[in-house]
Amino acid sequence: MEKTELMVEMALKSWKIQVKRAEHLLNSLTNNELLNEVAPGRNRGIYLFGHLAAYHDLLSETLGSGKKDFPEMQSRFVENPDDKESELLSIIELKSFWKKVHERLENEFQTLTTEDWFSKHEAVSQEDFKKEPHRNKLNVLLNRTSHLTYHLGQLMLLKK
Amino acid sequence: MEKTELMVEMALKSWKIQVKRAEHLLNSLTNNELLNEVAPGRNRGIYLFGHLAAYHDLLSETLGSGKKDFPEMQSRFVENPDDKESELLSIIELKSFWKKVHERLENEFQTLTTEDWFSKHEAVSQEDFKKEPHRNKLNVLLNRTSHLTYHLGQLMLLKK
Repeated sequence: MEKTELMVEMALKSWKIQVKRAEHLLNSLTNNELLNEVAPGRNRGIYLFGHLAAYHDLLSETLGSGKKDFPEMQSRFVENPDDKESELLSIIELKSFWKKVHERLENEFQTLTTEDWFSKHEAVSQEDFKKEPHRNKLNVLLNRTSHLTYHLGQLMLLKK
Repeated sequence: MEKTELMVEMALKSWKIQVKRAEHLLNSLTNNELLNEVAPGRNRGIYLFGHLAAYHDLLSETLGSGKKDFPEMQSRFVENPDDKESELLSIIELKSFWKKVHERLENEFQTLTTEDWFSKHEAVSQEDFKKEPHRNKLNVLLNRTSHLTYHLGQLMLLKK
């Protein structure tokens, strides 16, 4: 196997592992636990899971593979902090939101070739990309994996 | 630049960013904050920073570039959970421990070529590596970066 192919496989594997861990946690927490704060005064579980799903819904746009499916979730979960006066979403809706976003991404990722992963993402210009070739789609995936893992560490604190 | 070289650069950059974020946090927390738990009943800041430094001290061995410098830290921070009856380490010692481990790694990483990063790590046999070529040094680095980011999300909760 080519090293570049291998690299893409490694990055995709790492992404999938973290998504699965988060999903497993989401499905193992009770509704009450999901409404708890990860630490006193901090984000609630429902907000952080919604935040990850909404941020990942944007991924298709950054990778250039489509438009986000849930534009209404951006203000609730990305553009604004956790509004603790609000329910935000029912737990059933949250789980369906999570599932739809990640199933779509899994399908989209399968259509990308190794070459595609090393091509520029949508938030960088052709000129800048020539100078900074690391600003490619694979790097976006690595960054999103880090972001996911960061919040997963916090969400894990909800587990009793 | 070769795609493989680019990939190594991306992974190293991602590692460095997270190490710097953690270091910045370590230096901006007060001694009291470092002795707090990240959430009620969970690990203390001092334990998690010590855990990361001790785990990263093992990295040289996994990458095959040397022996760990602080073997006595393994039982305190890796093999056992946070012993809240114990001080574990003074904050001055913790900061020096962190600095030494990461400076050494930075130097060691510079001596590794792209080829080296795609070669097998020490915890996998030649035979298994032939079948599973993703079990290379670069993959170890990606995994350690995820592990670091996971705990960084928790440590960030110490910041008031």
